[in-house]
Amino acid sequence: MRTLGFDPGTATTGYGVVERHGARLVHVAHGVITTPPDQPFAERLRTIFEETREIVVRFRPEAVGIEKVYFSQNVTTGISVAQARGVIAVAVALEDVPIGEFSPLEVKNAVVGYGKATKRQVQEMIKILLNLDALPKPDDAADALAIAICQLHTGLPSQLERQRCIRSTSRGLPRRLET
Amino acid sequence: MRTLGFDPGTATTGYGVVERHGARLVHVAHGVITTPPDQPFAERLRTIFEETREIVVRFRPEAVGIEKVYFSQNVTTGISVAQARGVIAVAVALEDVPIGEFSPLEVKNAVVGYGKATKRQVQEMIKILLNLDALPKPDDAADALAIAICQLHTGLPSQLERQRCIRSTSRGLPRRLET
Repeated sequence: MRTLGFDPGTATTGYGVVERHGARLVHVAHGVITTPPDQPFAERLRTIFEETREIVVRFRPEAVGIEKVYFSQNVTTGISVAQARGVIAVAVALEDVPIGEFSPLEVKNAVVGYGKATKRQVQEMIKILLNLDALPKPDDAADALAIAICQLHTGLPSQLERQRCIRSTSRGLPRRLET
Repeated sequence: MRTLGFDPGTATTGYGVVERHGARLVHVAHGVITTPPDQPFAERLRTIFEETREIVVRFRPEAVGIEKVYFSQNVTTGISVAQARGVIAVAVALEDVPIGEFSPLEVKNAVVGYGKATKRQVQEMIKILLNLDALPKPDDAADALAIAICQLHTGLPSQLERQRCIRSTSRGLPRRLET
């Protein structure tokens, strides 16, 4: 199974593609979609839309994962993230690929097995799980890989509307990776 | 000149189309795009995207106006509005129609000439300005007509990135309508 994760943002949207081969996770690709701040907002969103469609067409994932939006910190950033998120969701839906939504807690649980893991812990675990030589960069792409892994654990696309990532309370690898 | 206004929302997106004939405003159309709450969020956004494109293609406005998003009240609604707003902006941009963004204050100033006007005052003024027999319904469509009027006052599409609605401090009709 192959999944694609997105970490949405108007300035920088991260994406990451992973596969499961038996119990093993395999890194396929990661990167970012960037838009210049001096462009009109609708043009920036159009770039995100078109590049998202290109990424979906190029990598043909069986399912896409995207993070839920919370506005605990910066409201302006939150609006910007939510707009980009809507655009990405439509671009994916137009390619008829199912989308799962995950909270940061669910993503951390899926990758590190601990919902309060730090950003650095998540990145280190991605490096180990995907057998990478270095931490994936930039952070948005690393976050997108984490979301793709979370999506991979969620199961088949048909189950997306019902299932969510496993919630392990123990530290270490999520249960499905241990089997 | 013909403008199209959008009042974005995931459940209900209002739209309104107006024209200026000399100093006179003319109502062309108004309505809503609705999506069922039991659908997956990406499917709802896809419906908004496709219906927005249809509306733009059908009415061929010279410019589109859309309200800025603020999250002073309900954060969950704000996320939902911002997502829909991003989707509408992309749908419009793909049809190569310029988009202006307006704050609620700017819209009220443009329609009523008073930034702190009530919703009811705005609706009554729309009825007068557009020579309607009744208040436009539902509220989302009325708000969209107000945004379309605000856009109409803003001028030519090429000026959209620089200009904003006129800010009149007096009650009554905005200055450009009086000339």
